[in-house]
Amino acid sequence: MRDFLPRGGLKGQGLIKPRVDGRIVKGLLKVGIIGASGYTGLELIRLLLRHPEVEITTITSEKYAGHKISEVFPSLEGWIELNYEKLQPRDIATDCQLVFMALPHLSSMALVPLLRKDRLRIIDLSADFRLKDPQTFAQWYDCTHACPELLSEAVYGLPEIYRPPIKDAQIVANPGCYPTGIILALAPLLKEKLIDGKFILVDSKSGISGAGRKVELEYQFCECHDALKAYQPVMHRHIPEIEQELSCLAGEEVLVSFTPHLAPMSRGILNTIYVKPKVEHPLQNIMEWYQNFYQNEPFIRLRGPGSLPDTRQVVGTNCCDIALFWDKRNKLLKIISVIDNLVKGASGQAIQNMNIMYNFGEKTGLDTPTMYP
Amino acid sequence: MRDFLPRGGLKGQGLIKPRVDGRIVKGLLKVGIIGASGYTGLELIRLLLRHPEVEITTITSEKYAGHKISEVFPSLEGWIELNYEKLQPRDIATDCQLVFMALPHLSSMALVPLLRKDRLRIIDLSADFRLKDPQTFAQWYDCTHACPELLSEAVYGLPEIYRPPIKDAQIVANPGCYPTGIILALAPLLKEKLIDGKFILVDSKSGISGAGRKVELEYQFCECHDALKAYQPVMHRHIPEIEQELSCLAGEEVLVSFTPHLAPMSRGILNTIYVKPKVEHPLQNIMEWYQNFYQNEPFIRLRGPGSLPDTRQVVGTNCCDIALFWDKRNKLLKIISVIDNLVKGASGQAIQNMNIMYNFGEKTGLDTPTMYP
Amino acid sequence: MRDFLPRGGLKGQGLIKPRVDGRIVKGLLKVGIIGASGYTGLELIRLLLRHPEVEITTITSEKYAGHKISEVFPSLEGWIELNYEKLQPRDIATDCQLVFMALPHLSSMALVPLLRKDRLRIIDLSADFRLKDPQTFAQWYDCTHACPELLSEAVYGLPEIYRPPIKDAQIVANPGCYPTGIILALAPLLKEKLIDGKFILVDSKSGISGAGRKVELEYQFCECHDALKAYQPVMHRHIPEIEQELSCLAGEEVLVSFTPHLAPMSRGILNTIYVKPKVEHPLQNIMEWYQNFYQNEPFIRLRGPGSLPDTRQVVGTNCCDIALFWDKRNKLLKIISVIDNLVKGASGQAIQNMNIMYNFGEKTGLDTPTMYP
Amino acid sequence: MRDFLPRGGLKGQGLIKPRVDGRIVKGLLKVGIIGASGYTGLELIRLLLRHPEVEITTITSEKYAGHKISEVFPSLEGWIELNYEKLQPRDIATDCQLVFMALPHLSSMALVPLLRKDRLRIIDLSADFRLKDPQTFAQWYDCTHACPELLSEAVYGLPEIYRPPIKDAQIVANPGCYPTGIILALAPLLKEKLIDGKFILVDSKSGISGAGRKVELEYQFCECHDALKAYQPVMHRHIPEIEQELSCLAGEEVLVSFTPHLAPMSRGILNTIYVKPKVEHPLQNIMEWYQNFYQNEPFIRLRGPGSLPDTRQVVGTNCCDIALFWDKRNKLLKIISVIDNLVKGASGQAIQNMNIMYNFGEKTGLDTPTMYP
Repeated sequence: MRDFLPRGGLKGQGLIKPRVDGRIVKGLLKVGIIGASGYTGLELIRLLLRHPEVEITTITSEKYAGHKISEVFPSLEGWIELNYEKLQPRDIATDCQLVFMALPHLSSMALVPLLRKDRLRIIDLSADFRLKDPQTFAQWYDCTHACPELLSEAVYGLPEIYRPPIKDAQIVANPGCYPTGIILALAPLLKEKLIDGKFILVDSKSGISGAGRKVELEYQFCECHDALKAYQPVMHRHIPEIEQELSCLAGEEVLVSFTPHLAPMSRGILNTIYVKPKVEHPLQNIMEWYQNFYQNEPFIRLRGPGSLPDTRQVVGTNCCDIALFWDKRNKLLKIISVIDNLVKGASGQAIQNMNIMYNFGEKTGLDTPTMYP
Repeated sequence: MRDFLPRGGLKGQGLIKPRVDGRIVKGLLKVGIIGASGYTGLELIRLLLRHPEVEITTITSEKYAGHKISEVFPSLEGWIELNYEKLQPRDIATDCQLVFMALPHLSSMALVPLLRKDRLRIIDLSADFRLKDPQTFAQWYDCTHACPELLSEAVYGLPEIYRPPIKDAQIVANPGCYPTGIILALAPLLKEKLIDGKFILVDSKSGISGAGRKVELEYQFCECHDALKAYQPVMHRHIPEIEQELSCLAGEEVLVSFTPHLAPMSRGILNTIYVKPKVEHPLQNIMEWYQNFYQNEPFIRLRGPGSLPDTRQVVGTNCCDIALFWDKRNKLLKIISVIDNLVKGASGQAIQNMNIMYNFGEKTGLDTPTMYP
Repeated sequence: MRDFLPRGGLKGQGLIKPRVDGRIVKGLLKVGIIGASGYTGLELIRLLLRHPEVEITTITSEKYAGHKISEVFPSLEGWIELNYEKLQPRDIATDCQLVFMALPHLSSMALVPLLRKDRLRIIDLSADFRLKDPQTFAQWYDCTHACPELLSEAVYGLPEIYRPPIKDAQIVANPGCYPTGIILALAPLLKEKLIDGKFILVDSKSGISGAGRKVELEYQFCECHDALKAYQPVMHRHIPEIEQELSCLAGEEVLVSFTPHLAPMSRGILNTIYVKPKVEHPLQNIMEWYQNFYQNEPFIRLRGPGSLPDTRQVVGTNCCDIALFWDKRNKLLKIISVIDNLVKGASGQAIQNMNIMYNFGEKTGLDTPTMYP
Repeated sequence: MRDFLPRGGLKGQGLIKPRVDGRIVKGLLKVGIIGASGYTGLELIRLLLRHPEVEITTITSEKYAGHKISEVFPSLEGWIELNYEKLQPRDIATDCQLVFMALPHLSSMALVPLLRKDRLRIIDLSADFRLKDPQTFAQWYDCTHACPELLSEAVYGLPEIYRPPIKDAQIVANPGCYPTGIILALAPLLKEKLIDGKFILVDSKSGISGAGRKVELEYQFCECHDALKAYQPVMHRHIPEIEQELSCLAGEEVLVSFTPHLAPMSRGILNTIYVKPKVEHPLQNIMEWYQNFYQNEPFIRLRGPGSLPDTRQVVGTNCCDIALFWDKRNKLLKIISVIDNLVKGASGQAIQNMNIMYNFGEKTGLDTPTMYP
């Protein structure tokens, strides 16, 4: 597949940021994307192309090295002229000030120590640096961690909880897609110790892009279109990550039962969460705690009574919508949260972290409303 | 829209059952469908057309009276030549031995007393005769029941639980789509008193056809395609029906927390159910109880360890697939059940009930494997 | 994945045809399916399981040999207990009277000569025996035909055109999915020499299952959901098959311009065909020719004025719906035909051919109306 | 439905453009959107919210007057705080310098004369001012035009063809979605008189949002999901618009045969266009004419040999992708174009027109790459 651009093309008119103009480029943050052949990598490119403070200097993919990015993703035709490169850890520090790592799980941890020597700042989108305890890591990932000494140094990149340490972090462990929506839905309750930490039940529904760009029978159109199923119904690898963060918020060990499902849509996660209040509070009060907790948060939208979060209302944005319902018959609080798994659940949150790390406006590059329908 | 058939047409070659042949017709059960302009009515027609023991004599619709059925549903072109009629309660008894009522909720209850006088047998697909207690009905449907004296007489048409009384029933209250999959998933556990009846948490996901053929903004393609949301997250009208039947099975009052969701697919319901065993039993033992409980059931498929029910595996069939998972970390049993909401959740189950009432083979007319993909 | 059946199971109650009953089995036609790991193989199984005159004795798959079929296709759980076998050409003739070959293109032609010796009758669903001219085959398939001497013997299995020779054929070349809907849409016009055979323009739209069960990036859910594109826009391999048959009908060489598209749905093909009448006839007359031409055809449904064929109206059935429109401004006749690519476009048509070959009623096993929605 | 914002909310952090800051606002263009309750209105809001040169001052809807916009479209929660207003033509000129009219066809023409008096500039997204000839209008819309004297004054808002007059226009008639992609695909050929103007065959496939936000049975999820059909197969109202513009380009009367189809996706139009070259030219040459013709166009992407346009590659953007194929067997040129019907086919093009009218950079506010998947 080889496309041609009209002479002069899109570039001449500025769809591509004018990197040729030395004066502007000088001030831009040089970023690299390592392993950009999947959907999170593509989403990073899409969002960074519109980010006014950033210049993408390097995009690597072992699989596509030498190919134009717009050849692999024709939707980027006219927006980017870079080629994929093979990863050269030594060159990265020269070319970049910050790298986003969008590699498969277990691939980042071997690489990060090499990159770190060069004082590069790193936002890792894999699961490799999210767990603090190497033993928990070993247990859930069937694998000894390659650099356990870095686990405590890495900062868990959920801005609503860890904004100050993210600011100064060298390594940010960008949260998983399920953990993001679940932790945000529960943080105010756990922080205030309002609920029983031993009873947290999470029923999640994810679009198919959550499985990545892997080519497998299970994710073929004809196999998952018009269909819904659960998967990994008791031991999904996001559990220790969720429990670590919720325990930390609660100040006590928290236990979560988690059941993910695959829904026939491209993007979006909806979490339906069931918890037991220790004491019965009017729903209105609980909502006010949420409002206080999130009052300065640019991407949290609390939905009012009767408003039901819908994945389509957040798709393409970095928003997390949260709604609360009181089931008085069963004395259960039901919390529903929705995010776009590839934005707030991955690449958008990574950019939000970058914005914090470099003192850019936190919403810079993330200010596009949902496309609907 | 007016279609034409090739001269001689499909009929001559038998796609339409040869009702003209007096000898065969004589033995057929004459059935009517009242209110057949929606999806459950259409599904009844589809399934009955292939039923070898039945002749459809009357199909009513106030809206479409006078129109050919294949004009309203062009997919039936060539399979049926009947016209919709206006409902004439007096004629029904002459023309039919059995009627399926596929009217909106609250419409059946006014009609059933009129029809019943004529000794017609009735399978009502609405919610009007499912609840035994007129006060519960009034409370959840904001409406006094029109014939409370018939509520105790009507038999709840879930064959796996009520096969003997269904056999002799004059009025069968065909179960709701959510209750069907939920009750079947829980019956063995409650019957054996194995779980805490005060903790039953049901998270259900339904295809859009569950909303019927209503024309509303919410169900427009562009509003629900590629999207997932919860609805009626604490007080859905199927709750009292579920609790009534589960309480009856358990011999004690049971409480259910129910959260339905709308998923972007045409058909199918997946229920994810969370319960607490009173005593911890090996999963294998629990599975054996299920096997025993359902050993002679033609439409229950228990899935083995590791097999995950998928709505697509039951769509178009009267099957209910059930799988069990033990979450040992949280000491929760997770039960997943899937059905086709329009078949086992409505019209297929109605035909199963008819087969029982008239001593036909229980699977007659319901013996088609899933179409996949 | 291993499922378990309730003791006694579905089998005891007859969902599976009672093959154990010697008396019934004796009269059944023994059929095999070679290469049944794809969607056409699965569809053959689905349809044959309900066919009252047939017993499936052998199902082969090199990939899945030894595995239960219901393990590979869980939707068949309870309906079939057979295992996949490795193909043993010698045993086939002992075990089967008829085989359906659902192998990839270029795989059948090596096998058919081996099977033929044993006097087995064969319905080949691949493209290997559809073209009469070995040179045309070589040119379009980049491959010398393995048994060119059989090409003239094989009968093109489009019953509406070749019913008499199909009756006695030993080898039936089951038509391609696109050719089926296109030839049926044009046959009456070409037979009557009503249109310019040098101007036939076909714009086709197919569901994703047309690509088979291949695991490729292009057919992943996230790559083709909510998207539409053309593919092979000038040289699709179905062209010589379409032209061969249309030329034969017209009695002169016919030329077709064909552009296939991929639409985001599981099943269904819609062909929009543009032709130029040699002489202007009233549309009503042309419709009457179609009615005459297809007057005894059980699966052709001619739609009347104003009725627009919709793929959903034929999905799951062996029907081909055809509608005609006269564009008087451009003096073009537009013909729209729809079929289910896996039924009339593959496995259903194969069964229709079998019904003809063995004098079964032509609609036997193919009498299920569309499931809608 | 009533939502609540966190105190301080999104607004404080700038997701909403800082209209409160007098200094910035002073320079912004004040625009209104008349009739913004449909999808094109919503898309205008979405795109204008990110446009740095514009302030939305007024949004009208007769149906929703008094309601918050984010109540009707919850996806806009946090991005806009305006309420819908009733249209007050007199106030419009005070509040706005430019209005976008997103009313149904036949509603604009009564209103435009009222607004025009006030020297407001108008971009009308309806069909009311696209046709130059009032008689053609009357014939295709069954309706006498309300202000035929304005038809010649209105400029057809296809920037690639009419950029200079758009610059100075008071009334811009924004093109229809089908015409946009079709005219752009054909303009270079007609301008150069390379093809037979009496043979242009267009087969178009549109997503469901093309039907607008009308609530009709036909567009319910269950009626159009997983289905494809043609509609208005000979006399669609976009035909005179297409022919008017193509004739103008060709300098002679051009005739088009147009067949639109509805595909089961939210957005996107793919046009497959068949034309006959007057003289045979190498495809490479034709591509070069296209390159020259569109060399400075920011939103036209010519795809190279073998690259197949896919609606998903343009969804959400103002791009029109075009590819050319030579069918040498039939001596036909096939041109495929894709656009997003709501962006380049409606609201994005309207903003492109505004950018031209006010000397903004033509891509301002339209610089977001496709979201994929």
